[in-house]
Amino acid sequence: MKKEHIRELLASVRAGDVDVEAALAALDENSVSAIDVAAVDTGRLARTGHPEVIFGQGKEAEDIVAILERLAAANQPGVVTRLSEEKASIICGAYPEAVWHRRARVLVVPSTATPSPPQCSEGDIVIICAGTSDLPVAEEAAVIAETFGYPVKRIRDVGVAGIHRVIKHQTTLRSARAIVVVAGMEGALASVVAGMVACPVIAVPTSVGYGASFGGLAALLGMLNSCATGVSVVNIDNGFGAAMVAMRMTGAQP
Amino acid sequence: MKKEHIRELLASVRAGDVDVEAALAALDENSVSAIDVAAVDTGRLARTGHPEVIFGQGKEAEDIVAILERLAAANQPGVVTRLSEEKASIICGAYPEAVWHRRARVLVVPSTATPSPPQCSEGDIVIICAGTSDLPVAEEAAVIAETFGYPVKRIRDVGVAGIHRVIKHQTTLRSARAIVVVAGMEGALASVVAGMVACPVIAVPTSVGYGASFGGLAALLGMLNSCATGVSVVNIDNGFGAAMVAMRMTGAQP
Amino acid sequence: MKKEHIRELLASVRAGDVDVEAALAALDENSVSAIDVAAVDTGRLARTGHPEVIFGQGKEAEDIVAILERLAAANQPGVVTRLSEEKASIICGAYPEAVWHRRARVLVVPSTATPSPPQCSEGDIVIICAGTSDLPVAEEAAVIAETFGYPVKRIRDVGVAGIHRVIKHQTTLRSARAIVVVAGMEGALASVVAGMVACPVIAVPTSVGYGASFGGLAALLGMLNSCATGVSVVNIDNGFGAAMVAMRMTGAQP
Amino acid sequence: MKKEHIRELLASVRAGDVDVEAALAALDENSVSAIDVAAVDTGRLARTGHPEVIFGQGKEAEDIVAILERLAAANQPGVVTRLSEEKASIICGAYPEAVWHRRARVLVVPSTATPSPPQCSEGDIVIICAGTSDLPVAEEAAVIAETFGYPVKRIRDVGVAGIHRVIKHQTTLRSARAIVVVAGMEGALASVVAGMVACPVIAVPTSVGYGASFGGLAALLGMLNSCATGVSVVNIDNGFGAAMVAMRMTGAQP
Amino acid sequence: MKKEHIRELLASVRAGDVDVEAALAALDENSVSAIDVAAVDTGRLARTGHPEVIFGQGKEAEDIVAILERLAAANQPGVVTRLSEEKASIICGAYPEAVWHRRARVLVVPSTATPSPPQCSEGDIVIICAGTSDLPVAEEAAVIAETFGYPVKRIRDVGVAGIHRVIKHQTTLRSARAIVVVAGMEGALASVVAGMVACPVIAVPTSVGYGASFGGLAALLGMLNSCATGVSVVNIDNGFGAAMVAMRMTGAQP
Amino acid sequence: MKKEHIRELLASVRAGDVDVEAALAALDENSVSAIDVAAVDTGRLARTGHPEVIFGQGKEAEDIVAILERLAAANQPGVVTRLSEEKASIICGAYPEAVWHRRARVLVVPSTATPSPPQCSEGDIVIICAGTSDLPVAEEAAVIAETFGYPVKRIRDVGVAGIHRVIKHQTTLRSARAIVVVAGMEGALASVVAGMVACPVIAVPTSVGYGASFGGLAALLGMLNSCATGVSVVNIDNGFGAAMVAMRMTGAQP
Amino acid sequence: MKKEHIRELLASVRAGDVDVEAALAALDENSVSAIDVAAVDTGRLARTGHPEVIFGQGKEAEDIVAILERLAAANQPGVVTRLSEEKASIICGAYPEAVWHRRARVLVVPSTATPSPPQCSEGDIVIICAGTSDLPVAEEAAVIAETFGYPVKRIRDVGVAGIHRVIKHQTTLRSARAIVVVAGMEGALASVVAGMVACPVIAVPTSVGYGASFGGLAALLGMLNSCATGVSVVNIDNGFGAAMVAMRMTGAQP
Amino acid sequence: MKKEHIRELLASVRAGDVDVEAALAALDENSVSAIDVAAVDTGRLARTGHPEVIFGQGKEAEDIVAILERLAAANQPGVVTRLSEEKASIICGAYPEAVWHRRARVLVVPSTATPSPPQCSEGDIVIICAGTSDLPVAEEAAVIAETFGYPVKRIRDVGVAGIHRVIKHQTTLRSARAIVVVAGMEGALASVVAGMVACPVIAVPTSVGYGASFGGLAALLGMLNSCATGVSVVNIDNGFGAAMVAMRMTGAQP
Repeated sequence: MKKEHIRELLASVRAGDVDVEAALAALDENSVSAIDVAAVDTGRLARTGHPEVIFGQGKEAEDIVAILERLAAANQPGVVTRLSEEKASIICGAYPEAVWHRRARVLVVPSTATPSPPQCSEGDIVIICAGTSDLPVAEEAAVIAETFGYPVKRIRDVGVAGIHRVIKHQTTLRSARAIVVVAGMEGALASVVAGMVACPVIAVPTSVGYGASFGGLAALLGMLNSCATGVSVVNIDNGFGAAMVAMRMTGAQP
Repeated sequence: MKKEHIRELLASVRAGDVDVEAALAALDENSVSAIDVAAVDTGRLARTGHPEVIFGQGKEAEDIVAILERLAAANQPGVVTRLSEEKASIICGAYPEAVWHRRARVLVVPSTATPSPPQCSEGDIVIICAGTSDLPVAEEAAVIAETFGYPVKRIRDVGVAGIHRVIKHQTTLRSARAIVVVAGMEGALASVVAGMVACPVIAVPTSVGYGASFGGLAALLGMLNSCATGVSVVNIDNGFGAAMVAMRMTGAQP
Repeated sequence: MKKEHIRELLASVRAGDVDVEAALAALDENSVSAIDVAAVDTGRLARTGHPEVIFGQGKEAEDIVAILERLAAANQPGVVTRLSEEKASIICGAYPEAVWHRRARVLVVPSTATPSPPQCSEGDIVIICAGTSDLPVAEEAAVIAETFGYPVKRIRDVGVAGIHRVIKHQTTLRSARAIVVVAGMEGALASVVAGMVACPVIAVPTSVGYGASFGGLAALLGMLNSCATGVSVVNIDNGFGAAMVAMRMTGAQP
Repeated sequence: MKKEHIRELLASVRAGDVDVEAALAALDENSVSAIDVAAVDTGRLARTGHPEVIFGQGKEAEDIVAILERLAAANQPGVVTRLSEEKASIICGAYPEAVWHRRARVLVVPSTATPSPPQCSEGDIVIICAGTSDLPVAEEAAVIAETFGYPVKRIRDVGVAGIHRVIKHQTTLRSARAIVVVAGMEGALASVVAGMVACPVIAVPTSVGYGASFGGLAALLGMLNSCATGVSVVNIDNGFGAAMVAMRMTGAQP
Repeated sequence: MKKEHIRELLASVRAGDVDVEAALAALDENSVSAIDVAAVDTGRLARTGHPEVIFGQGKEAEDIVAILERLAAANQPGVVTRLSEEKASIICGAYPEAVWHRRARVLVVPSTATPSPPQCSEGDIVIICAGTSDLPVAEEAAVIAETFGYPVKRIRDVGVAGIHRVIKHQTTLRSARAIVVVAGMEGALASVVAGMVACPVIAVPTSVGYGASFGGLAALLGMLNSCATGVSVVNIDNGFGAAMVAMRMTGAQP
Repeated sequence: MKKEHIRELLASVRAGDVDVEAALAALDENSVSAIDVAAVDTGRLARTGHPEVIFGQGKEAEDIVAILERLAAANQPGVVTRLSEEKASIICGAYPEAVWHRRARVLVVPSTATPSPPQCSEGDIVIICAGTSDLPVAEEAAVIAETFGYPVKRIRDVGVAGIHRVIKHQTTLRSARAIVVVAGMEGALASVVAGMVACPVIAVPTSVGYGASFGGLAALLGMLNSCATGVSVVNIDNGFGAAMVAMRMTGAQP
Repeated sequence: MKKEHIRELLASVRAGDVDVEAALAALDENSVSAIDVAAVDTGRLARTGHPEVIFGQGKEAEDIVAILERLAAANQPGVVTRLSEEKASIICGAYPEAVWHRRARVLVVPSTATPSPPQCSEGDIVIICAGTSDLPVAEEAAVIAETFGYPVKRIRDVGVAGIHRVIKHQTTLRSARAIVVVAGMEGALASVVAGMVACPVIAVPTSVGYGASFGGLAALLGMLNSCATGVSVVNIDNGFGAAMVAMRMTGAQP
Repeated sequence: MKKEHIRELLASVRAGDVDVEAALAALDENSVSAIDVAAVDTGRLARTGHPEVIFGQGKEAEDIVAILERLAAANQPGVVTRLSEEKASIICGAYPEAVWHRRARVLVVPSTATPSPPQCSEGDIVIICAGTSDLPVAEEAAVIAETFGYPVKRIRDVGVAGIHRVIKHQTTLRSARAIVVVAGMEGALASVVAGMVACPVIAVPTSVGYGASFGGLAALLGMLNSCATGVSVVNIDNGFGAAMVAMRMTGAQP
């Protein structure tokens, strides 16, 4: 756990906002909150700076509800990705305070604690996407970052077929500390951006494209083979993962 | 922008058909018309000779409507590919003048300006397909070309299993300036045609076939490995892309 | 056979430079010159405008010599691609007039007839490559085109990681009638160039790159999925094939 | 064992040319001749009509010699495929009567019995290849068939880029009972031939080609996806396997 | 066209059952019957012994009806493979005499001429499948063969996990002239059968299996790599193609 | 058949619980119970210790019912995997005693004989999964084992991102005789577990994950490449197969 | 550490054969012996029952020598797999007691302690291979097992093309407790064996085969898709890994 | 260019250490230094904070020497990756001050300017590898970082098969600001490390492993599918690329 977070926590204990048992649990890096179908890694927040996030795909709605209950009990926000509209409405029935981000397919049950304070400055994280069809993935990244207190600057639909659209945003890009580039088809935007800036670029290939994109494989390979330096890559359509990397890059240091 | 197009534009300005501001915008190669979800590359027409075309797949109908509005404002035709019937009917509701090409899955909102004058001669572009199952892709190519003023000659269902069917069209093929060959399965038609003519052949693999076509991979690899010279290849099922290449080959030169 | 070529041939016959039998053979689109190991397609020149070219890989040197003899007998130049240095020196022993292009791995035995007159104008064909490691493939393309009378403009080492290097050549690129883009790694150069010009772009993926280029697969898929229109693709490392397409695009029309 | 073969064998026994024990062994469909490194399937001749053939690749020369000794002891010819020149010369040292087919990379130790009588008529099996680079594979097929008494008609270098070369051989092709088509690159020859004839076509993809042939995968997939009926496919570069199928098709019936 | 078929045809002409024009058409190997969406290869029957068969997938029902009309006009049976139940019922509406083979997904419109006489003997063709889940593909093969007059012997559900089930059918297998082996998962049945018999084996991989069958790729590769000789392979799930090969093997010779 | 099973059977015969004919059938390792669509391998129980299990996918409900009838006639339990809810309800209509395990998608028709006695001790088999989304596969394994009399210890949701969750179960893992590890995504759990224990680990990759899991390929390759020894792998999502391996490892020895 | 091993160790301590410090180290499951290039996991023997084995490929000879020195210091045998002949001779120079198994490419430096006592009975582990070309992999498995005290029964060259060869060994196979099946090409032997026995089968695909074996992929997929139960799979050519699994299955239980 | 770098540069100008023209060039973000075979991107240092690095593979030694000359002229260090020993010795002949890192296959020609001052603190970057065979890749990363002034902490040979080896380094790992994880085989180390720390993890898959690693594909997919958050991935064996990302993460901020 980062020192500054421990300091905050101790201040809350002293102020009487957090009781001793809860603080103890929050400090336990190896805590687990087990139920029948899951072993929620409640210690993850202490170890990595961010709580466990639920991968919604392939889970039954009632299992997700049960896991959310465990996170809430640990005073941690409940975030579910890759959620179908149908399951989301079931969960929203159980958690009226839940927020459903339709385009991003992300559901958030805010922690009963106060909302996340800013973890980095405005403009530190830029999320840029190549086409309008890449928006759901870019939004997944943006929603995740914002949920955890990282403000995000969005740039949309600036594919390299009109390179002037990218160059137009040069100043914004150059003042970022981490850039998430979301692109399908050949995924060339990552290389072009990385060649213009000094900060790290996190590339997210998307499954958008005609047949030989093979579900995003074309963009994935393109990004892995970037001729520009400073590019690293996450899974296809994995806006969530990109956001997590960007957050680790720009959060307060250890 | 090609000289002849600039000349036409200036003539229109002089004739009072186009006002000065519109001409200025049309000449700006780097113009962008941005909305929330898109940055429409309105300068593309000036740079490449053809306006931006909307890839319909993965976009929401309301986003497409918004982009079409930007193109119309720039006096450019609105063309949408890979559109589902369902989204098409929503868009047709918003644009009653839109034309829906069902088999090609292409929707066209004509520019308020006059229709495209012929950009090449009858017979310059030939679109030939190997089987009836390849028709949707061949039609995508044909509709795109015709929309932009390139007349197209269609030859259908002449797969190499009956080679005499191809040879029958030898005269038509030999007088073309660019030939689009659309074929699934093993895609051999591209090689046979290219060995008979002197003009370039644009090969479009389709996803038609039994299991080991692997969604068009077999035809794609076959076409890339053509033993005949003069063949280049576009993405699987990408009739749109093939048309754009053929148009660049046969349009008035710079 | 293109009309202008027939006209030239008839003029030569009239002038007594070509005898009647030779002219007859040159006009026969279906002529074949068979030997034990090969059936040389001597009619290809009449049909497609360019003679058969020998794929050197996997052929024994003595077989290549025998095929070259058939081409020479038909007054056609002998061109061999993908030739190892070792076989090249054997062949040069048999044909002292042969020219060996080491970097391109192409060997040319000029036709005893006069050298090819220019088939297109200077600057009509541009060959541009992304990195110095792509040179052998780019040179294969350039040597092939020049051998058949198509002058070529070379632009080298302008990968998209330094996008200003590409933009610098905008004028040259825009005045071309066909552009061959040679690139390995992610192959993004094809998209960027195609977005800047109105002529067709022939993309050649190369096998240059770290592990996940998978022998050029990454660049191949990237180019097939180009978000820019006007791009078509040939086989990995196939500079020869790209040149043949460019020649068909820019040669005198039918 | 086919009736006619049993009849021949019994005649030899009666004539005193074959002793009773040898005949007994030849009739035993489940006989095995085991040594340390191998269990030679000497019963295969009785079961399938042809003896076991040794796959030379990955075997040590001394192991091959030992297996050949077992086949000789069973009065069966010894045939080794995929043999390197180096191992071949070692084996030829041990078996001076061995014949080494260099281009085919096949070594044959004739049976001490009389040479194989013709198993089918001249012209029943045609082996046709698309290019000179495919010759080693085509020769592997031809040598195997001829070794077992099946005369073969060879047609070479008739790729589909010059379709007239194929059509020229129509009569020969139509009078065949089985056709082996050997082709690399896109492998289209199989489809064209199968569309012209009534007999079965056995397609052999070869690993000849530029990068995206992926070691013969392109031709393999092309042949499996043939739009013509009557085509079945064997492994890449597997001339041996194609010959065995053709032999089963044309040999005397059960 | 095979001699015996020509003899039959001439006899019919003499008998007055077929008029001269129809006979002329039937003898024309290069006849084509073209409509808007198709160029039906009516000459295929004369060239290859069997008429064109319609690949139903990806074709619209009305297109199929139109093609069937052309085949009927040429006195040829209409056969459609890979047909959905929905399209089948539309076509059956147009052709009440059509027979719908549900499990095989094949629809047959019999020729108005008399039904096909037997083209081979009972037991010449054996179709054997490894599991009950492979039945639809095996039935596609069986229905196709029977439709064209080739009686078929079926053996079902004899996977190699219980090898005694295969051995039990040894006598039937050994008296066949061509065996079609249909198997998913690892496809090992083809090798085991081919090792027991002297006739050719046509292997059909199916897409049946757990995840790493990758849509039949596992069985396809397994069959292509068979350690037994005499195996050749058709496309995944392509029972139709296997039947056509078996028919070419066992039909009356040229 | 294992000796101890034969002893049990003979005791039952002596006690009059099993009649002579039934015992005879149970002892016949090569018995087959054939119906039209299947050849049920009723001898499998005698040969391998476990009866045939029905792969439900791709089979029609009525076929499954017919096969179950054959198993019941042989006094063997009927187990169906990969069954859709829809088919399950049809089958439950026919067999009211059938038990439907919804999450595992397994249906069991108990043998009319007494339930399976324990085949191994509690704790001998441990089934551990990495995430809640892997539960259906883990349950398939667990249900199969329990159905055949092998008690199973379940550990759930202990992915390596929280390595302490795995270590917590060290004692349970170390006292196992066989461990089934079920994991999607990168499948790393198999390596970590295998490095902590002395018993064999059976790894089951699942198809859970973002795009580049490619349907479980990532986990499959990861598990095959485990840097820990003692890991062997079954098919993607094949919980059934893993259970069968674990049962063979821990059942009473021969 | 297994109880019986601890008992042995304590007996040795009591007898004065092992001193206290050495015993302490041997009991430490988390011991590491670090040098500059490696962190030798000396605790692995205590945790998993077998010491760390060195993967020779990609390591420099001097690094291997240094690691061997660490293992020797811990009284553990040094075993190196995938070693080139060249590196082996360097290492043998440093360790004259080393044994080099050429065919298996395994080098063993025996522990200074007494040789491994038998860990299982003769016949418990059977290693069976399909062809002579698979011997190096089968030998890797055999040498590893024998080095650690597990006697091995070898069966060689019994591919399924001659199924009687497998059946011949039925008794040996049925009395095994674990069977390692080594096979290239289609890898069908694993299924056939698993259908005949009650013990677990560990399948090792090899890279032996014609082109479409794709370096062993065909056999790998075949084995993963086995229609027989009881099969699990290790990496291509990984005889070492298979031995380790077999050893875990047959060693004394915890 | 980062502000602090500009400040340093201006100070040097004022101090007379750098002349005005050189400073001008250093500040020009779009400068290019072109020679025949290359267009050296000398502006890259100003744009991205680091100079262009030469990818040695596929380049001729004389070309590399020429490029190095251009970098030296621009006062930038010359770094060449993926260099063979043979080319390295040629280059060292031309540049005696060059340093050759054999294991990393990296050659460095130091800038004539003073060596790079530290760009981050000791311990900020940790490079950890799973096995000794991964060392060349890990060293490529380490040498690159150190060359540019980023001190590196190395942890070696801590694969997850002995998880205690990783845990031992927990403190070092937790105090890092960026961790490069280098691993072949299944690549699981990335997930385990990322689950223990709060900083970003850059994963480098290596091509180390048995057959089904498919040249590093297994590790690549494993890392892309990491169940732990905070992991992003670079190309197979691309230690260079990982270092560049780590440097962008830990260098002084804009």
